[in-house]
Order: sequence, then structure tokens, then C-alpha cells
Amino acid sequence: MEPVLINNLWVIIAALLVFIMTIAVGFLEVGEEGIGMSKSLFKTILITGSAIFFMALIGFNIAFAPTIFHGLIGNPFYNGLFLGGFSSVSQGLLTGVWWSMDANFFNTGLTTGTYFLFEAAFAAVTLALVSVVVLKKMKLSSFMIYSAVYFIIIWTLPAAWIWNPTGWLFQMGVRDFAGGLVVHGAAAAAGLGIMYQIWKEERAKGFKKSPQTPVKLNQGWLALGILLLWVGWFGFNPGSVLAFNSSAMTVVITTFLAAATAMLSTMAVSKISGIGKPDIMSAVNGILMGLIIITPLAGFVSPASSVVLGLLGGPIFVYGSAWFGRRKWFADPVGLLPGHMVGGLFGVLMIAFFTQAPFAAASGNGTLPSGILFGGGMAAISQLGLEAFGIIVVMATVFVLSYVTCAIISAAGSGITTNYAARRRNK
Amino acid sequence: MEPVLINNLWVIIAALLVFIMTIAVGFLEVGEEGIGMSKSLFKTILITGSAIFFMALIGFNIAFAPTIFHGLIGNPFYNGLFLGGFSSVSQGLLTGVWWSMDANFFNTGLTTGTYFLFEAAFAAVTLALVSVVVLKKMKLSSFMIYSAVYFIIIWTLPAAWIWNPTGWLFQMGVRDFAGGLVVHGAAAAAGLGIMYQIWKEERAKGFKKSPQTPVKLNQGWLALGILLLWVGWFGFNPGSVLAFNSSAMTVVITTFLAAATAMLSTMAVSKISGIGKPDIMSAVNGILMGLIIITPLAGFVSPASSVVLGLLGGPIFVYGSAWFGRRKWFADPVGLLPGHMVGGLFGVLMIAFFTQAPFAAASGNGTLPSGILFGGGMAAISQLGLEAFGIIVVMATVFVLSYVTCAIISAAGSGITTNYAARRRNK
Amino acid sequence: MEPVLINNLWVIIAALLVFIMTIAVGFLEVGEEGIGMSKSLFKTILITGSAIFFMALIGFNIAFAPTIFHGLIGNPFYNGLFLGGFSSVSQGLLTGVWWSMDANFFNTGLTTGTYFLFEAAFAAVTLALVSVVVLKKMKLSSFMIYSAVYFIIIWTLPAAWIWNPTGWLFQMGVRDFAGGLVVHGAAAAAGLGIMYQIWKEERAKGFKKSPQTPVKLNQGWLALGILLLWVGWFGFNPGSVLAFNSSAMTVVITTFLAAATAMLSTMAVSKISGIGKPDIMSAVNGILMGLIIITPLAGFVSPASSVVLGLLGGPIFVYGSAWFGRRKWFADPVGLLPGHMVGGLFGVLMIAFFTQAPFAAASGNGTLPSGILFGGGMAAISQLGLEAFGIIVVMATVFVLSYVTCAIISAAGSGITTNYAARRRNK
Repeated sequence: MEPVLINNLWVIIAALLVFIMTIAVGFLEVGEEGIGMSKSLFKTILITGSAIFFMALIGFNIAFAPTIFHGLIGNPFYNGLFLGGFSSVSQGLLTGVWWSMDANFFNTGLTTGTYFLFEAAFAAVTLALVSVVVLKKMKLSSFMIYSAVYFIIIWTLPAAWIWNPTGWLFQMGVRDFAGGLVVHGAAAAAGLGIMYQIWKEERAKGFKKSPQTPVKLNQGWLALGILLLWVGWFGFNPGSVLAFNSSAMTVVITTFLAAATAMLSTMAVSKISGIGKPDIMSAVNGILMGLIIITPLAGFVSPASSVVLGLLGGPIFVYGSAWFGRRKWFADPVGLLPGHMVGGLFGVLMIAFFTQAPFAAASGNGTLPSGILFGGGMAAISQLGLEAFGIIVVMATVFVLSYVTCAIISAAGSGITTNYAARRRNK
Repeated sequence: MEPVLINNLWVIIAALLVFIMTIAVGFLEVGEEGIGMSKSLFKTILITGSAIFFMALIGFNIAFAPTIFHGLIGNPFYNGLFLGGFSSVSQGLLTGVWWSMDANFFNTGLTTGTYFLFEAAFAAVTLALVSVVVLKKMKLSSFMIYSAVYFIIIWTLPAAWIWNPTGWLFQMGVRDFAGGLVVHGAAAAAGLGIMYQIWKEERAKGFKKSPQTPVKLNQGWLALGILLLWVGWFGFNPGSVLAFNSSAMTVVITTFLAAATAMLSTMAVSKISGIGKPDIMSAVNGILMGLIIITPLAGFVSPASSVVLGLLGGPIFVYGSAWFGRRKWFADPVGLLPGHMVGGLFGVLMIAFFTQAPFAAASGNGTLPSGILFGGGMAAISQLGLEAFGIIVVMATVFVLSYVTCAIISAAGSGITTNYAARRRNK
Repeated sequence: MEPVLINNLWVIIAALLVFIMTIAVGFLEVGEEGIGMSKSLFKTILITGSAIFFMALIGFNIAFAPTIFHGLIGNPFYNGLFLGGFSSVSQGLLTGVWWSMDANFFNTGLTTGTYFLFEAAFAAVTLALVSVVVLKKMKLSSFMIYSAVYFIIIWTLPAAWIWNPTGWLFQMGVRDFAGGLVVHGAAAAAGLGIMYQIWKEERAKGFKKSPQTPVKLNQGWLALGILLLWVGWFGFNPGSVLAFNSSAMTVVITTFLAAATAMLSTMAVSKISGIGKPDIMSAVNGILMGLIIITPLAGFVSPASSVVLGLLGGPIFVYGSAWFGRRKWFADPVGLLPGHMVGGLFGVLMIAFFTQAPFAAASGNGTLPSGILFGGGMAAISQLGLEAFGIIVVMATVFVLSYVTCAIISAAGSGITTNYAARRRNK
């Protein structure tokens, strides 16, 4: 199959936009924390470079090559290391397309280069989300080792299961349009694994609760961060159609409309509930919440459904945030859990409620049934069970992999926690 | 008619670039004011979200649906609320194109999603321009109510009249390529409406002149703002061809060349006249002035004409700015009036002077006659009258709508003005 | 020949990304210097505007019009001033394509508008690189005059020789994919010409060594600068295929992979060698070094070769930087010489080692032989000689032109050096 140029052009531009998001997370952290700029920005620059290197080395194959072991893992050596090594005839590099983009599978005609960049950018931004919980707490050297493991096996397994057309969960029928589970949910599970190791080390040092990171807004960097993330999501969701067609243009609407609605909803709920204020943080968190919720089903729903989902974003974030804020065994300064975990997994479950089959079919998901609210009946209830099963499997796997990785790094060195906590306790 | 993919790809990318401009105006304000970052950035984030929400709700229909009442207003319910509501067969969403992009009208094959995002971004950035005059002066709650009214009726009417192919001014022959009148002129008229209400309230508090906002440069944010606006204009003007063809590529040249020339011209005039200095503010204002002037006719003129128009930008801005600087009944810290009003309307009138029919035809404006300087003769003089008529109608309408909106908001609450002015007077 | 729309869309987007890089260099300077924001940002805004103006005026013709005098210079009046003046039938503006993009030459179907914007952006960013050595040292008025000369003759000559298909070095067989010599090498040569004039003036004032500019990191602007440059390089290298095809997508991989690898390599070498630290500056410099080295051959090599080249980037930068750091007759705060000169020219020579003919053919360079490491044999050794010859000719020419230009400006005014040096000496 020949590359389909317009699809490649669309997705490679989307890839570039997603690429920007990783460093944008650094700006967001700087904007929300107001200090410690250095570590946030350095960390996200490192993540970006490491993602490209390790995904090209072998991670991309593990996630997206034809699977082995009954859909458990992509063949690590399918296309050679570094996307074909020194070969000039490797899969879809100078001629032809990546195997799963062929007519037998997704039929979008993307080349290896295009698809690699798109997915490497996704992997990078996922780790950037994970890393918001390690702010000032995890040693940079530990985090760098963790990154390599992450891009080789932790990020790649859920992708191989759900986004690879021969993955076992995909084959069962689990769907996740642009990463409510593969990105947001899994990021939270990985983050929890790290938090748990940090908490173990903090308890060993005698802490009763985990030292929290103070918030001190810097609105310039905050606004830059949200602008870049908003723009990046233009690539993230619409690019996930993996083709440029009417669905891709419609996903632009559902994505942006959910963000806009959730912004208004979050501000309104903040004001009405008296939890928080309708200020810039509330607007920024609302935008993010809308984007997160719509992500797993942006290609499956109508514009009006995205408005409904956006409206739900406000109360979910405001009350979720308040609930998590009372847990004291971890520090989550940038809202990984109320935002990405609750929002992402909520969105995944909503697939079984809001999907409209014509929208899903247009984005290339022809077998997905309409949701419960759109006459899906038993098929939709079955889909709900499938999505819940996918959530449990992925969250548990990623949590365990992440925690074990941290425990090993901790044992090999002398802990993964910086003495930041110690310094603060002495004050 | 099938969507024309390359046109949609071009315009949806242009839409994304224009989308960036709204928040960029916030950075520009922060760069020029050096303080009060919070309100500027918060305001432009709010505007962006509100534009998407209210334009999708009903504004897009009012501006761009087939008109009713003899071209006065688009049918608000043409495509359903939120671009088709829950329907999966609505106009141009998953199949076909938006009605005015069909072969009977503009014949560019854009879908609803593409065209909506492009125009919603235009609406957003227009209100961002309006809002530069309310810096520190207007209550945020008042401004939020104003925003909803703005996106439903104030922005949409001139668009329905001039950019909708069944609008009454379009039918008469008024043309405005990318918004010298619909964006820049109308923004100034709306801003004047707000200013007038603020001035009424300030006088009621005993002010003799309107407190001015001090300028204190922050060059990092200023440079970021101008960079994003410059890049955004790449979407604004070339995207306004609504198709990717030779004209679109030529509009890139006319746009960037006008900006570059006006930058040099403004710096030179600043130095020679002794009004201001050839510094970074002068360069930034020059770039903006060039972009503003070329906007209404970027698709109608040759590259050399854009140089001439850019050259005129320098003296117009420098002397215009000095003239408005002596008016004391309003505060216009970021130059809405000398920049957007004078520059935008000047550019609209220049349509009747600089248009070359082959350029206009290539950008889809086949009926526009060549200008007075290019042998247009009586047809060009008639066009000049038409443009002047359009200016008067639009400016008067928008000013009145804007002022009445503010007066009602003021009456419903207790004024729209913050106590910023009061605080300053007491010093 | 009709314009090939997808190629034009790709290259015009690439042009926009490259356009961003010039101002990004200003952010990088601000990030690395921490002070003197004003001059860096103002300077790069000026460069951008001047590039567009002077390249359109005549520079683009000098570089890219059909050559005269045996390939020495493009016909300055080929397409008229300002890309066709007031004519609506000029070359490739509203119909047809730029002559060298026709089937007789590069056969990519680019219009004048597309190709102009792409190359004007390259010219701009080249001068931005040159200008990092004049930070706080050269009078702004002198620099503005220098800019005009630069865009008319200094940038354009090497481009006419190597990138114009009738240029004499191109005809001999010298190749430079995206500007290891035409951009990075030539920027260093031009910078050396300016440095030499400044050093002459400093010696005349009694200096024994050239005052160095202190480094004081501002990590926010630094991160923004590197993000924009990284994104911009997406346009710089992949856009240099001048077409959207499989090669363009592969160049994305080679470019980003070299950057990622060099980031890791530079950090590792910094740590192991004890020269510097594996900090954010080391990561940023590593990314830049990888991008610089891969630039001249990104379209000629396999992904694995780009990893090898990236690995070499670390030691070359770290030791090169240490070596240049001991030279005291100039100030090079942002690493023009160890980065752009050493990296760029090293990359140019590597063409003769790492090229694989199928990759080169896919990017439109069908006559380039495979490199020494890929069985190129005598043809590759001959290519090595050609590249070395090209380096010598271009570096010498640009150095002399740059120095003579500075000397004349210096003689016409009273030197080109600010009294910055004087001020510091008195402290």
C-alpha cells in the first residue's frame, strides 16, 4: 500500500503538536508552583529526548509491531532497533506503510516515520503527567533510570493491548479513542506506584504525613502552559483518527467544545459550591478536565454530547479535587489523581453511554456499539463491562510495574526520595 | 459536494493558528503593561473558552447560516444548537460540506467543523482586541456577561452582513478580505461603546479625565506576544482564502511583507519625527500596524502594493497614536484606536485603490473591480463608496449594540467599572 | 507545471516553523544570559522583519533565480523587485511554479510564495545565529546596516552556489542537505568576521582580552527557546526535502533521533569527563548539537546512522566547547563556534561517510554516492574532497565579506563596538 499523503501530513503535524505538550507540562508546573522552575523544565526536556530515544530503540516495536504471545506484547525485533537500523528497505520507511496502517487493519496509509513520531510524543507526554507527582521529591538520577524502563515496558504494554490491532484487549473489544486509559489512567497508576514508594521511604524517615508542595501561582507560565496544552490537544485527539477526514474535523469540535464547556462549568461549580474560587486556576483546571474527559471518546460522540460531558467535568473536578486534597499520604500538587485518573477513567466508562455508532464508524471504529443513552441496549452494557475490565487490568498492571521498578531502583541506590522532605521537616 | 481535503487541512491549521492569537493578546498586554498579568491572561483564556461555547451554541448559525429577513441575520436554528446537537446527519459534520462552501457559493469544500473553528477563532480574537481597553477598568463579572452577548449578536451581525454570501452588505458588493472592518474596525467600535459607558461612570464619580494605565515594558512577554500574533496572522490572512491554492501562498507574501515593511517604516518615522524612539515597542507596533492594514485586502493586491501599504503604516501609526494620546476621556493602553480602528478602516478604503482584479479573482473574489491606481475607474470609485457605506453602517451598529449592552449590564448591577479608578484617585 | 498542492502545504508550514526559530534564538539568549533581555529580543524581531523585506526586495533573486556569470550569482532582476512587483503574471505567483521547482530541476512544484517564505526564514535564522556573538558588543545601528548587506549578498552567495541548481558548487557536486555549511558554517564565518572587527576595536582601546559576557541562567526562557528551536527544526530539516513524501517523514526521524541521542550523549560526557555538569544547559546544548550535526545529511542517512552521529555530538561539543573557552580574543556566550561551526562542518564532512544512496535518492539527491562506511569507495572519497573544498570556499568568502562589511561600517561611523566593554573595564 502506498502512503496516503494527506493522512500522513495530518498525523505528522498532530505529532508535532503533541510533542510540544511534554515541555508544556513543565511550564504548567512552573506556573502552578511558582518556584523550582529548574527541575520541572529540565525534567520535561529530558523526558522528551528519552522518549524519542528509547521508543525508537525498541519501545515502538513492543507497542506497535505485530504481537506475539497471544497479543501480550509486540515483537521487539520486528522492524530492527531504531526503526530499521541501517537498512534502507525497512518497513514503511522509504516505501510502503507501517503494517497496522495497511488495508488489512486501520487502512490509513501512515508510514513508520509518521506513526512513530505520533506515538513517541504520546509516550513522552504520558510520562510528563506521571512525573508531576515527583516534583521536588524524586532524585533526578532515579527518575532517569525509571524513564528508560517506562518507555521500554510500562508505557508500551497498555498500548500493545489496546491500540495495537492484534493486542488482546483490542481483540476483546476494549476501545479507548485517544488515551483516557492508555494515557491518563495509566499515568495515574504509574504515578501512584511512584508515590507509594516515596511514601514508604518517607514513613521510614518518621513522617506522619507526606510533605505537601506549596502552590504559588506564576500566571505567565501558567497561561503559556495551558495555551500549549490546549493547542497540543488539537493534535492529540483529532490526530488520533489517524487520518484526515470528516471525523477528524468533527473531533476538533468535540474536543474544543468539551474544554470550553468544562471551563465554564468548573468556574460555576467553584463559585456555587464555595470550594475554591472562579479564578484563573479554576479556568485552567476546567479546560484540562474537559480535555481529559473527552479524550477517550472524542471520536465516538456528537458535539452536543461533548457539551454534556464538559458540563459534568466541573463538579467531578471540584469535588474530586476536594476529596483527594484530604488524603495526606501523598503530594499531588498538579492534580494527577482528581484530573487525569478520575477524569480519564470516567471518560472511558462514558464510551458505553454516549457513543453514537455513526460517529464511531467515521473515526474508524465500526464495531463499537452505540451507547446506553443512544439505544445501544445490551451491546452497550456489555461494552461497559469490557471497558471496566480494561481499566482494572491496565491500572493494576501499570501500578505494579511502576512500583516494582521504583522499589528496585530504590534498593539498588539508597532510596529514590530526595532530602527535600527532610529539609522541610527540620524547619 | 465532498469535502476538499487539502482546503480543509489548510483552513483547520489556519484556525488553530488564529486560536492562539487570543491568548497572545494577553501576553502582549502583559508585555506592554508589565503588571496586572493575572487579569490579562485570565481574561483572554476566558474569551477563548466563551467564544467556542457561545459560537457553537448559536452564534455560528447567526453569522453563517442562510440568512433570513433579507440578509439581516443568519437563521439561528439552521443547524441546530451546538452545530447539530445530537444528530449524526447534521450539515457537513460527517458527510458533505457547510452550505456556503458548496459549489453554489464559495465552492471551497469546507466542512462545518473546519469552518466553525476558523470563525470561532476569529470571533475570539476580535473580543480580545475589544478587551484591551477594559484593562483594570471593567469588572470581570460584567465582562463575562458582555462576552456572551458579544458572541451571540455583536460579533455575528457584521459577519452575517459581509462574510455570509447572502448577507445584505455582501450582496451590495462590500468586501473585506480578512476583517479590516469585521474584525479590527468593529473591535474598535465595540471598544468605544465600552469606553463610553466607563467614562459615564467615571464622570459620575467626579473624574475630570479618565485615569490612564501606566506602561512598564516586560520584553520577554512582549516578544512572545508579538511572535504568536505574527504566526497567528499566517492563519488569519492566508487562511481567509478558505482554500489552499496559489492565492493562499501569495497572501502569505503580502501579509508578511506588509508587516516587515511597516516595522521598518514605523521605526524610521519614530526616529525622524522625534515622536517616540525606534525601540522594541516601535518595532512591535509597526509589525501590528502592517498586519492590520493589509488584512482587508491581502488577497486582492500584489506584493509590491503590500510594500507600499506597509510604508504608509509607519506615519499613520506614529501620528495617529500621538493624536489619540492627547484625548483624555478614555484609556487605550494597547492602542486599539490608532492601531486597529485607523489601520483597519484605512485598509478597507484602500481596497478601492490597490486591488488588482487577477489577485482578487484568485482569492475567490471575482466580482471585485481593480482599484483606482490600477485602472479601475468608475467601478473603483463606486467600490470606494460601498466600502465607506459599509464602514459607517457597521461601526454605528456595533458601537450602539456595545454601549447598550454595557448600559444594561451597568443598570442591572451597580456599574461595570472596577474601583481601580477610585483607588488611583485617592493616591 | 501546476503547483503540487501537498508539497506546497508541507513546505509553507515548514517555513512558518523556521520563521519562529529566529525569535526563539532571542529567547535562548535571554535564557542563557539572564539579563539584557531587551537587546536580544529586539534584535531577533528586527532580523525577522529585515530578512523578509530585503530578501523580497532582491536577495531571493540573487540566491535562487537562474544564475549568471557561470553560476556565481542569481540574476538579481529575474522576477522583479519584491517577487514580481505590481505584476500579476510574475513567475509562479498566481499560476505555475518557481523555475527551479519545475520538472527540469527539483520537480517539486513549489510556488514562488512558498519557496520564498521558506528561504527567507532560513536567511533570518542564519543571521540570528551570527548575531549571538554581538550580544552587548555591537551597536544596534551598525547591526541594522550589516543586516541589509547580509540579506542582499552575504547570505545569498553560498545559497546561490550550493542550493541553486545552476550554482557552480552545486554543479560540481557539493551537497548540503539543510545547511550545515550554508547556514551553520557560514553563520560562524560571518560571526568570526564581526568578532575580528570588534577585537580590532577592543585592542585599539587597550584591551588585552575581549570582555566576556557573564552567564546567568533563566530557565523559563531557556526552555521556551529550546522548545521553539526543536519544533522549528521539524520545519528546517524535513521541510528541506521541498516535498512531502516518504523521505520527508523519514527525515523527521533522523532529525529528532539525532537530537535525542546527542542530548543523552552530551549529558553523559559532561558527567564522565568532569567538564561541566549533566544539567539543563548540558541537555539544551546537546539537543542543539545533535540537530546541527544531522542538518547537512538528515535526508541522506538511515535512522541508526543518525543515532551514531548523535552519539558523536556529545564529546565533540564538550571538548570543543572547552577548547574554544580558552581562547580569549573573542566572546562567544552562546557557543556559535563549538556548536554551529564545529558541529555544522563536521556534519558536512560526514556526508561522505554516512550517506546511503537510497535515502539520498528519496530526498531528491539521486546523484550523491553512498558514503565510505556504506561501500561508496572512491566516489565517496571524491565526495569528501568536494565537501572540504566547498567548506573552504564558503567559509573564506563569508568571513571576508563579513569582515569587510564591518570594517566599512566602522570606518563610516566611529566603530561598531558599543562602550559596553569600556564600561566593564572601568569597574
